[in-house]
Amino acid sequence: MPDPSPKKPVKIAPPTGTRDFYPREMLVRRYITDAWRRTALRHGFDEIDGPTFESAELYKVKSGEGILNEMFGVFSGKGLAEPQAPAPGTFDPRNPPFGLRPEFTPTLARMYAARAKQLPQPTKWFCVSNFFRAERPQRGRLREFWQWNCDVIGGEDLITADAEVVSCVVDLMGAVGLTSENARAYFSDRVILDAYLLDVIGIRTDQLESARDILDRGTKMTPDEVRAYAISRGFDSDRADYFSFQRPPSNKSGGASESEIQTVLKLGDQRLVRLNNAFAAFDLGDWKQLNLSIVRGLAYYTGTVFEVIAEGERAVAGGGRYDNLIELFGGPPTPACGFGMGDAVLGNLLEDRKLIPEGRDMLEALARPMPYRPDVFVIASPNPGCEELIVPTVARLRRGEESEKYKQGEAKPWSAERYSVPPLHARRSYKATKNVGKLLADAGACHARFAAIIESPEKCTLKHMDTGEQTPDVLLDQLAQRVSRGA
Amino acid sequence: MPDPSPKKPVKIAPPTGTRDFYPREMLVRRYITDAWRRTALRHGFDEIDGPTFESAELYKVKSGEGILNEMFGVFSGKGLAEPQAPAPGTFDPRNPPFGLRPEFTPTLARMYAARAKQLPQPTKWFCVSNFFRAERPQRGRLREFWQWNCDVIGGEDLITADAEVVSCVVDLMGAVGLTSENARAYFSDRVILDAYLLDVIGIRTDQLESARDILDRGTKMTPDEVRAYAISRGFDSDRADYFSFQRPPSNKSGGASESEIQTVLKLGDQRLVRLNNAFAAFDLGDWKQLNLSIVRGLAYYTGTVFEVIAEGERAVAGGGRYDNLIELFGGPPTPACGFGMGDAVLGNLLEDRKLIPEGRDMLEALARPMPYRPDVFVIASPNPGCEELIVPTVARLRRGEESEKYKQGEAKPWSAERYSVPPLHARRSYKATKNVGKLLADAGACHARFAAIIESPEKCTLKHMDTGEQTPDVLLDQLAQRVSRGA
Repeated sequence: MPDPSPKKPVKIAPPTGTRDFYPREMLVRRYITDAWRRTALRHGFDEIDGPTFESAELYKVKSGEGILNEMFGVFSGKGLAEPQAPAPGTFDPRNPPFGLRPEFTPTLARMYAARAKQLPQPTKWFCVSNFFRAERPQRGRLREFWQWNCDVIGGEDLITADAEVVSCVVDLMGAVGLTSENARAYFSDRVILDAYLLDVIGIRTDQLESARDILDRGTKMTPDEVRAYAISRGFDSDRADYFSFQRPPSNKSGGASESEIQTVLKLGDQRLVRLNNAFAAFDLGDWKQLNLSIVRGLAYYTGTVFEVIAEGERAVAGGGRYDNLIELFGGPPTPACGFGMGDAVLGNLLEDRKLIPEGRDMLEALARPMPYRPDVFVIASPNPGCEELIVPTVARLRRGEESEKYKQGEAKPWSAERYSVPPLHARRSYKATKNVGKLLADAGACHARFAAIIESPEKCTLKHMDTGEQTPDVLLDQLAQRVSRGA
Repeated sequence: MPDPSPKKPVKIAPPTGTRDFYPREMLVRRYITDAWRRTALRHGFDEIDGPTFESAELYKVKSGEGILNEMFGVFSGKGLAEPQAPAPGTFDPRNPPFGLRPEFTPTLARMYAARAKQLPQPTKWFCVSNFFRAERPQRGRLREFWQWNCDVIGGEDLITADAEVVSCVVDLMGAVGLTSENARAYFSDRVILDAYLLDVIGIRTDQLESARDILDRGTKMTPDEVRAYAISRGFDSDRADYFSFQRPPSNKSGGASESEIQTVLKLGDQRLVRLNNAFAAFDLGDWKQLNLSIVRGLAYYTGTVFEVIAEGERAVAGGGRYDNLIELFGGPPTPACGFGMGDAVLGNLLEDRKLIPEGRDMLEALARPMPYRPDVFVIASPNPGCEELIVPTVARLRRGEESEKYKQGEAKPWSAERYSVPPLHARRSYKATKNVGKLLADAGACHARFAAIIESPEKCTLKHMDTGEQTPDVLLDQLAQRVSRGA
C-alpha cells in the first residue's frame, strides 16, 4: 500500500459496504433509529450499550463458524490484554485479540452475567448500535449496519415474554407505516422442530445442527438441491428424501412409527396453542403466522423462533428464545428471548413504499418528544377477571388509536393526524404479588405519570402519581384517551 | 489464546478502556449526546456521519505520528479493498488495511471533497459518534469514547465563522449548567504564534512543528525542563532560553530587532482585535480568554485555535481553523474551522458538579423535543444599522433567557423552570445578497417557522412562514418570547 506524501491531494473512498451519511441519509438513519427507540421505550425496555469491539474470545463462546468467519479483527499492539506489537512474521491475522462486534447477544449475555444478582426479574433491555460483518455487500446486506436489539432476560411467564417480544417488533412495523399486507412475523418452535427431526425423521442428536441448517437453506433450494445438500452433509438417502419432502417419513422406510408421529404432533399442538393464546392477548392479529421452516441460523435458540419477512426481501428482523446462553457466559441459568432488526432491509422497505418523510415532515417527525417517562403503569385489583386484562390493556395503550383520516388513507403515517390517541409508554409489574399498595410503589419507582388499577372488566381507577389525585370508574375503553390528555 | 469449549461457562471482561453502558450509564450518555445535538441543531448545523472504520491510508494524509501510533488496525482478510487472508508469517500488523476512526476530521474532509461542488457555502456539519485510540486509559481518556464535532467549511466571512464555532461550544457548556467560573475557552492564533516564533525568536521554518510542540508541552513543565526539552529538540542555547522565558529575545543576543518585534506585535494586535470584535458580536462575555500558549497538537491548524479547559482537568474541547486540509483530501481549496468535544472529560465535570439529573428529572430532560426545525430565520432589511444586528440577534435567540429563579439558584439547569424563554433554533443567511425576497425564500427552504426581518436597530417584522401572516414592529427585545410562544 503506497504511503502518499503528506502534501499530495488524495481521493480515498469509504470502505466497501460502509456508508457516508450526508445530511439527508443521516435524517433517514435518525428516523429509523428514533422509531426503534420510541417503540422500545413504550414497551418498557431500558437502553444499554457495550463496546464496539470485544475480546475475540467472546465470539468464540457461541457465535458459530458463520459469524466468526465474517468477523473483522481489531488490534493495536499497544498492550492491555492484547499481544504486544508483534514483529512482522509472528502475527496470526486469523487470531486477532479483538473483534468488531458482529452481533449484540454475546455482549448482552456478558453484561447480564456480570450483574445477574442485582438485576430485576425480568430485565428488559434494548440497544440501538452499529455492527460489522465482512460479508460481500448486496441489497440489504452491508459490512457496517445499524441494528436494534430487544431482549427479555429472566422472569417467570416465558410464553408471555415470547409474545411480548414479538408484539414489540410488530408494533415497530406498524409505527413506521407497514401493515400485515406488507410483511408478517413468521414463527416456529425449536422444541417442536427438534422433536420432529429426532423422533419423526430419525436423525441423531449430534446431527441436529446440520439438519437445521438443511431446513434453513432448503427454503431457497429446489427439492433436488435439498436432497443433494443433505447427502453432502452426511445424511443417508432416506433422510435426504424426507428433508426434500420427496417422500414422507414412514415406518417402513426406517422412519417413525404412527404413535411416535402422534406424540410429536400432540407436543406441537400443545405448545402452539399456548403461544397463540399469548399472541392473542397482545392482539397480534394478522401479523403472526406459523411457518415451521423458520429455523434461524444460530445454534443457540431453544424455543420460539421468528422472522419478520416482507415479500421479495431478506428477513427484516429475527429472534427467539435462548434459555441456555446466559449460563454459557458465566451467569446463573436464566431464560431469555429477544430479536434483532437491521436498518438496511427496513430502510429499503420504507424507501420503496415511500414511507420516509421528506422536508418539513421529516424535521417535525424527528422533533417529537421521546417517551422516556412511562405514561401509565397498569395494575389489576384482586377482583375477578382483572388480572387477565393487564396484558391486553397494556398492548392497546402502547399501540395507540388510529384516526379515521389515517384509516381512509388521508394522513401520512408520520403525521400528527395519524392517531386519535397516540401510542403511550405503558408498563406493568412482572411480580407475582397482587398487593395493590406494593404495585403502586412500583409504579412510583419507575416514575410513571399515572397508575391504572383495573377494578372490573370494564372500569379502572386512574391515579395521578405526581398529585395523588384519583379518578374512579374510568372506562377501560377511554383509558388511553384520558392518560394522553393528562386525565 | 485458549479457545474455550462451547459448553464451558466463561467470564470475559470488556476490553480495557471501553465501557459497558448499563441503563443508568446509558441515560447519562444520552443526556450528554442529546445536549450536543440540541446545541448543534440550534446553531444551524446539519448532522452527518461516516464509517466507523476507514482505509488506514486516510489517516496517513494528515493525522501525524501521534494518532497513527494509537490507531486500532482492522482487517478481515475477506477481500474488497483489503488483502486476502494472508498466511501467518506474511501479515504486517503495523500496516493494516483499515483503521478504527481515531478522529473525525479526515472523514469530514473526505466527504466534503467528494461533493464539494454541490454543497452550500458555507457547509455547517456536526457529528456525534464514537472514536478509538489505543492510549493507556486514565481519567478523562478512554480507548473508546464519544465525541461531538462541529465544522464550518467554506464561506466568506472566516473570522465570524471562527467566532460562531467558539459560540457553539460555549453555548453547550452553558446549556449543561457550567459557567465561565468553571471553565473557559482559551484561544490563540497560529499566524501570530508562527510570526513570533519565526521573526522574534528567530527559528527556521522547518523548526516550526518542533517549536509548537515545545510550547504545547511546556505548559506542563518547569522553565528548566522546557529549556532542556528545547535543547533535546535541536534548538540552540539562546532559543532554549526564549522558549523557557528565562531571557526575553533581544537584538543583542541574536534575537529580533525592535522593529521586527513591533511588526509582529502589530500583526497580533490587528488579528486579535478582529477576532475579539467577532467574539463580542456573539456576546461570549467571560467565556473567552486569550492564551498564547494554546497551540493544539495537530499540525494542520492555520489560524484561530482554542481549547475549553476547566481547572484541574484535561481540555474538554479543542479546535481551530484549518484552511489547507480539504485540498489535501482532493477537494478544492476551502477554508474550514471546527472543534471536537469528548464525553469523558465533560462527563467527569458534570458528575463532580452534580450536574447530571437523576430519576424523573432525567427522564423528563431526555423526553424534550429536539430542535430539528428552525424556529426563526433572521434577515436584515437594507435600512442602516440592521445588517450588523443579525449575528447578535441570532446569538441571543440561540441562548434563550434565563429565569430569575434559575439565576437565584432555585432551579436546576435541566429543569423547565431554567428559562423564561427557552433557547431557540435560529438561522441566518451567509449569502452576500441583501434582497429580502431571496432571503425569505432561503427561510422557507430550510423550513423555518418564522422569519424575522430587522427593520431598525429596535424593531423587526415577524413573518409566520406557514400562514404567511406578518406582525410588524416587534421589539427585538421581545423577539425570542414572541417566537417561542408562536407569535
